[in-house]
Amino acid sequence: MRLATIRTPQGTRAIRIDGATAVETGHTDVGALLADDDWPAVAAAASGPEHGLAEREYAPVVLSPGKVLCVGLNYRNHILEMGRDLPEYPTLFTKFADALIGAGDEILLPPESAAVDWEAELAIVIGHPVRRADEEAAIRAIVGFTVLNDVTMRDWQYRTTEWTQGKTFEATTPLGPVLVTPDELPGGVRPALPLSASVDGEMVQKADTSDLVFDPVALVRYISTIITLRPGDVIATGTPGGVGHARKPPRYLTDGALLVTEIGGLGRLTNRARAE
Amino acid sequence: MRLATIRTPQGTRAIRIDGATAVETGHTDVGALLADDDWPAVAAAASGPEHGLAEREYAPVVLSPGKVLCVGLNYRNHILEMGRDLPEYPTLFTKFADALIGAGDEILLPPESAAVDWEAELAIVIGHPVRRADEEAAIRAIVGFTVLNDVTMRDWQYRTTEWTQGKTFEATTPLGPVLVTPDELPGGVRPALPLSASVDGEMVQKADTSDLVFDPVALVRYISTIITLRPGDVIATGTPGGVGHARKPPRYLTDGALLVTEIGGLGRLTNRARAE
Repeated sequence: MRLATIRTPQGTRAIRIDGATAVETGHTDVGALLADDDWPAVAAAASGPEHGLAEREYAPVVLSPGKVLCVGLNYRNHILEMGRDLPEYPTLFTKFADALIGAGDEILLPPESAAVDWEAELAIVIGHPVRRADEEAAIRAIVGFTVLNDVTMRDWQYRTTEWTQGKTFEATTPLGPVLVTPDELPGGVRPALPLSASVDGEMVQKADTSDLVFDPVALVRYISTIITLRPGDVIATGTPGGVGHARKPPRYLTDGALLVTEIGGLGRLTNRARAE
Repeated sequence: MRLATIRTPQGTRAIRIDGATAVETGHTDVGALLADDDWPAVAAAASGPEHGLAEREYAPVVLSPGKVLCVGLNYRNHILEMGRDLPEYPTLFTKFADALIGAGDEILLPPESAAVDWEAELAIVIGHPVRRADEEAAIRAIVGFTVLNDVTMRDWQYRTTEWTQGKTFEATTPLGPVLVTPDELPGGVRPALPLSASVDGEMVQKADTSDLVFDPVALVRYISTIITLRPGDVIATGTPGGVGHARKPPRYLTDGALLVTEIGGLGRLTNRARAE
């Protein structure tokens, strides 16, 4: 199943995508849909107003996740090419929901940062509450996957040891366009999908989501040891090599730059950077 | 004004405290009250069911803040006694709302950690939305203060460079008992109050909240540069010296330990640690 949250003149609406059409499920966003225990049946049976595919404007798939967790240093090839050991534990940090934007929205470049960078990532969406998940419970909790770009203010990220302040600037993190359930993906809950980012048409990141050190099931198990994961929560699984900050000289997003983030089978974020 | 969220047989309720009695405001918690733009008048005029003071059971003052931000390394004396320079920027990290408990609740000691520590802190509660606050806007956004203990799993905190995973274990962070508006406090929005923590009756932390490097107004200004702060958001302002991890040998919370966290003028958290 493919789900999304679109903007309509009446406000945001959760939709189920059937080929070339979109059917409203009766919820304001996919997060509200997932909060219904019976959401798979509800979504499958939905027969609300229909929308064509062409001119949809996407909101973040989940408008306001209770938790947005991010993972650092999680692509095996990239860690090894940097000459580092594979980590024993995932590095976790967070974003706030106010940082999220839709798949076609502008990324606001705040005047306070001169180092806005990209990080293409596979994102997990949680569909059922889970704590201290075993393998089976973790698999069941993963409702699906979407695309996220963990846009980062590097100058703020490295002001202190804790990265959060460079990771959660208002209206800078695209999430979407759609949520795809694991049954539609090669690899299922451990999807094997091509991931890429380009800036103004130049490919800057390229990897396969099967290269994660901590895969989605492992991440749900680890994080749920700490705290209950709930429907609509989002886990961004980390980014591969190719970020602008690591280039010599570094390269950052500037006013007018077009950032395209794509995962085969999931879709594409197309976000233009715009000076605020 | 003094506000709190109590548990009743009908669920949680926001209350205004008038001397020895508590009057329901008609909201499920203080967070819902603050979401009303006109909350000061609404709270002042509330005349719902009344409760006696004696046997109230407090929920977290705000049940589910959209943001819980925490500040590291913020007490001047403690930084200087450690031989460090005063920081140029605040160190920020986060907790999730699922970590919060009430002022008299048990702190769950998870079997996964052997190093559960205390951090007594002054907490700011936001009452109006604010972004890029100047001094005046920051002052207006601060609805009041309460007490928080940033209970920390030190072994998880230091697994990686990013502290969050040791800071947000389920049901471990007491917040409350009441929110007190700045007009009732010496120092107002920069309160000068005695803060302390004791474990089993032994004083372990003692400081004055006027000793912050980044005071509440400065923190609201800094954080709101990054992202919009909204009603019910909580900022924990950091802890002074005296944590268990810094002792030789280290000391941690064990099953049955009684942690009391107190700020003069705001109230007291009384939480017993209990092995989960």
